[in-house]
Amino acid sequence: MIRILRLYKCGSPIVIIMNKHYLEKADINTPKLFETEIVSNQTVEIVPDESAFFGVRSVPVGTNREVFVGGDRFILDFGCHCVGYLSFRLRHDTAYLDAPVQLKLRFGETPYEMSRDYASYHGGLCASWLQEDTVSVDFPEIVKMPRRYCFRYLEVTVLKTPRPVRLTDFTVTCISSADWNKLEPLPAGTDPELIAIDRVAAKTLADCMQTAYEDGPKRDRRLWTGDLRLQALTDYYLFRNDRLARRCLYLFAACEEDGKFLPGCLYQKPSVFFDEGMGITDYAMLWTAALCDYFTHTGDEETTRDLFPVAKCQMDLACSRICEDGSFAFLGGWFSFIDWAKNIQQMLPCLGVILYAMEKMAALAASLGETECAAAWNEKLCKTRNNIYASFFDAERNCFIDTRSEKPQYSVQAQAWLILGGVITGETAQSVLKQCLASPDALKPVTPYMHHYVVEAMIKLDMKEEALAYIKSYWGSMIQNGADTFWEAYDPKNPELSPYGDVIINSFCHAWSCSPSYFIRKYFI
Amino acid sequence: MIRILRLYKCGSPIVIIMNKHYLEKADINTPKLFETEIVSNQTVEIVPDESAFFGVRSVPVGTNREVFVGGDRFILDFGCHCVGYLSFRLRHDTAYLDAPVQLKLRFGETPYEMSRDYASYHGGLCASWLQEDTVSVDFPEIVKMPRRYCFRYLEVTVLKTPRPVRLTDFTVTCISSADWNKLEPLPAGTDPELIAIDRVAAKTLADCMQTAYEDGPKRDRRLWTGDLRLQALTDYYLFRNDRLARRCLYLFAACEEDGKFLPGCLYQKPSVFFDEGMGITDYAMLWTAALCDYFTHTGDEETTRDLFPVAKCQMDLACSRICEDGSFAFLGGWFSFIDWAKNIQQMLPCLGVILYAMEKMAALAASLGETECAAAWNEKLCKTRNNIYASFFDAERNCFIDTRSEKPQYSVQAQAWLILGGVITGETAQSVLKQCLASPDALKPVTPYMHHYVVEAMIKLDMKEEALAYIKSYWGSMIQNGADTFWEAYDPKNPELSPYGDVIINSFCHAWSCSPSYFIRKYFI
Repeated sequence: MIRILRLYKCGSPIVIIMNKHYLEKADINTPKLFETEIVSNQTVEIVPDESAFFGVRSVPVGTNREVFVGGDRFILDFGCHCVGYLSFRLRHDTAYLDAPVQLKLRFGETPYEMSRDYASYHGGLCASWLQEDTVSVDFPEIVKMPRRYCFRYLEVTVLKTPRPVRLTDFTVTCISSADWNKLEPLPAGTDPELIAIDRVAAKTLADCMQTAYEDGPKRDRRLWTGDLRLQALTDYYLFRNDRLARRCLYLFAACEEDGKFLPGCLYQKPSVFFDEGMGITDYAMLWTAALCDYFTHTGDEETTRDLFPVAKCQMDLACSRICEDGSFAFLGGWFSFIDWAKNIQQMLPCLGVILYAMEKMAALAASLGETECAAAWNEKLCKTRNNIYASFFDAERNCFIDTRSEKPQYSVQAQAWLILGGVITGETAQSVLKQCLASPDALKPVTPYMHHYVVEAMIKLDMKEEALAYIKSYWGSMIQNGADTFWEAYDPKNPELSPYGDVIINSFCHAWSCSPSYFIRKYFI
Repeated sequence: MIRILRLYKCGSPIVIIMNKHYLEKADINTPKLFETEIVSNQTVEIVPDESAFFGVRSVPVGTNREVFVGGDRFILDFGCHCVGYLSFRLRHDTAYLDAPVQLKLRFGETPYEMSRDYASYHGGLCASWLQEDTVSVDFPEIVKMPRRYCFRYLEVTVLKTPRPVRLTDFTVTCISSADWNKLEPLPAGTDPELIAIDRVAAKTLADCMQTAYEDGPKRDRRLWTGDLRLQALTDYYLFRNDRLARRCLYLFAACEEDGKFLPGCLYQKPSVFFDEGMGITDYAMLWTAALCDYFTHTGDEETTRDLFPVAKCQMDLACSRICEDGSFAFLGGWFSFIDWAKNIQQMLPCLGVILYAMEKMAALAASLGETECAAAWNEKLCKTRNNIYASFFDAERNCFIDTRSEKPQYSVQAQAWLILGGVITGETAQSVLKQCLASPDALKPVTPYMHHYVVEAMIKLDMKEEALAYIKSYWGSMIQNGADTFWEAYDPKNPELSPYGDVIINSFCHAWSCSPSYFIRKYFI
């Protein structure tokens, strides 16, 4: 049932044990990739614009001329966000090209990236994520770039050419495992703002749908449990690629290790692999939630039963770390993510995630006839909710707060997640959430991912109107600020927001931002 | 019998008419490429050395370590000149590579190139010939570089990596259409200096033998008539790839245009093509000489008869431009090459080339029973020799010189070629050649190509001892000065010699330098 992968680490082989059955299941569910060709000869300039969110905008300057000499530079706009393979035609002009031609190709998802010199990057993540390559072409030919790029804008600089060179037919073969034919149009009469948000959300998800649900096709191009949960959930309402959801669930299941939470992310190439130090407690819980969603939306009992033992182990492991006082003892080496908000305290929101998943798992167990599990988890749920309330709810301040920590933190993240975890309900919960969202002192979410769970908490509390306004003001304003696809991180008041120290490394098509389509299609049509 | 290729020029189609039959013959004679793998983990440093020809030498510093971080740099020595495809293995070290790895690869044939920053290049040819590329690797894998490179030394710079990266298994898959199994070893007892020269010459030729006889695999990678003649001639004594010689003769024949000399060079990719402005009178004559050589060495009458009409037209065209006074009227747009010596006057040596080819063509015509041609050319030969002698031989100065030119030039090139053209013979010719070679005022050859014809003239004049000494002092000293393969341009007294303004753009494996093996194997064993 297991296979062993050998990889070299510091010169010595290391052994990773993976579940062969689950890997095979993941493998046979690898989805087909659809191809779409997009051609551009639309040249743009990036100009300063104080009224624009990032201070620049792209201005069309006409169709591209075809003949260039050394030092020439132009920016093409492909008109929409693209994930795929670039090709172009390189020919001689007045005379045969008697030496290689060297070009620099620089790709960006947004005009802002194009306005920046990538050499000025000052962020913390490796600069190699910035998409910039040189290519030497030995003969006139159709040049096919071997790497997959993610971009709307392409800057071409002719570094070296012996003679004038003719560059034409810039084409992207876009790839995605989303089948646009399966997408139902929204009903006639739907609020145009929602139609716009849904369209951008669908495009965001589609561009992240490859052989797995990637987090961002520009960066990191990995499958993360937390992103997977929102992607699959939204996909049930958009492209319905159940096969892809199934594959992703199996991929993580194959990585299960005794006494550990599932890895937070995994790589598909060169073969399925996960790295140490990527254990994320809340993400492991969301994998179990994703399995519950899968069963709800597909009814596929065979797969669900096949994966249930893994989900059970994960949930039992989480339960075992919940203390009598309602606090959570993180497993050594395992952290919690929750949101990219600075210095966020994670224990309270993480408890909320655990309870949220536990409630779904108890229901799933009951559906599958696993009555013992269902009973145990329901009991644990009830007890833990009470203990958390007793230990962490400050009735005077009307919020959850960990007063035992050095600097007790008042955060939307903790309130929203503990509401989703069912620790408080009804009007109490409504007032807690509203007060926290309105408080200038409270820590606020900065990622669309965490904003999703705020909206989910609102809907749970029958605050549908507020939820709709929230979606419009957050995701809607991202569109007004130029988003073709929804971004990894967004604070309408802070264009410099980046979890990594420099906005140009941010992913501007990020899967965890796609969930407005889920809300719109489930609740608002 | 003809086909039409359409190519675009300034946006409008241009038409090139090529001979279909000859193209097909060229095509079916495309040779097989042999592959040889060379692996290196030998690291070297390039250090200054005043005693070295180029002022630097390569010093081994041990086997390469395997793990590198951003900014690391190393130079590998593959131990011999290589033409082929580079691959290497890229893996993670202490942790999985969670971002692409970007490397710069810089290739050089000599330590001198490696000692220079290619950005400092100041020559006239396009800098894109300098072999330097960056590559971004998205996943740990065996990286196969798509371009063919020509080098002995490889500098790897780790531009960007998220974590320590393991780089191993640097391998070149060398390609050549030379079959080393066909090479006869020199007889036991052969002068070790000649053995060394023969070995370097054979390697030079082999590395230029691809799907055509290339001039230089680093630059220009084209088939030139002048180079072809020496390559094929030498190859009859080394690898005997008659098929390749046949292909190359056909390729040029396919390019014949009415009333024009054959193009001086042609390209094989994307399809067979020749460019305007590359008509070289002496080179066209050497194509006819190459056909005569082909018949002499292969006895392949069918091919020779098939190509004879083209050679006849070329020779008749040359004859028609020879004036009554023995001078030559260059066809508009056609120039002559002869040698890279600065400001060389070309008419006299070019006349020598024409007579040299005419004598061979007359003999070939006689062998094929083309008696009319043979008689006409023999008559023209005799008459032209007399006229040239009358017009251009200065008996007092004991040399050929064009006193009608503004600055009459005394050159080895003119003496050698007019001797090969049979205008003077015997002791007169010996004394003319010796005196010119010894004269400090005379223009001297700077290319191994022209040096070949000086040696050929010596052998024609029964100066075998001088010829041998000349080979040893010219080609032999190139080996002493570090040549793994013979160079495009070499003046033992001037390491800065470059026809293009900067030595690093010179080709250090250049086909027209391979002919010592021809002399050694034909005359000196």
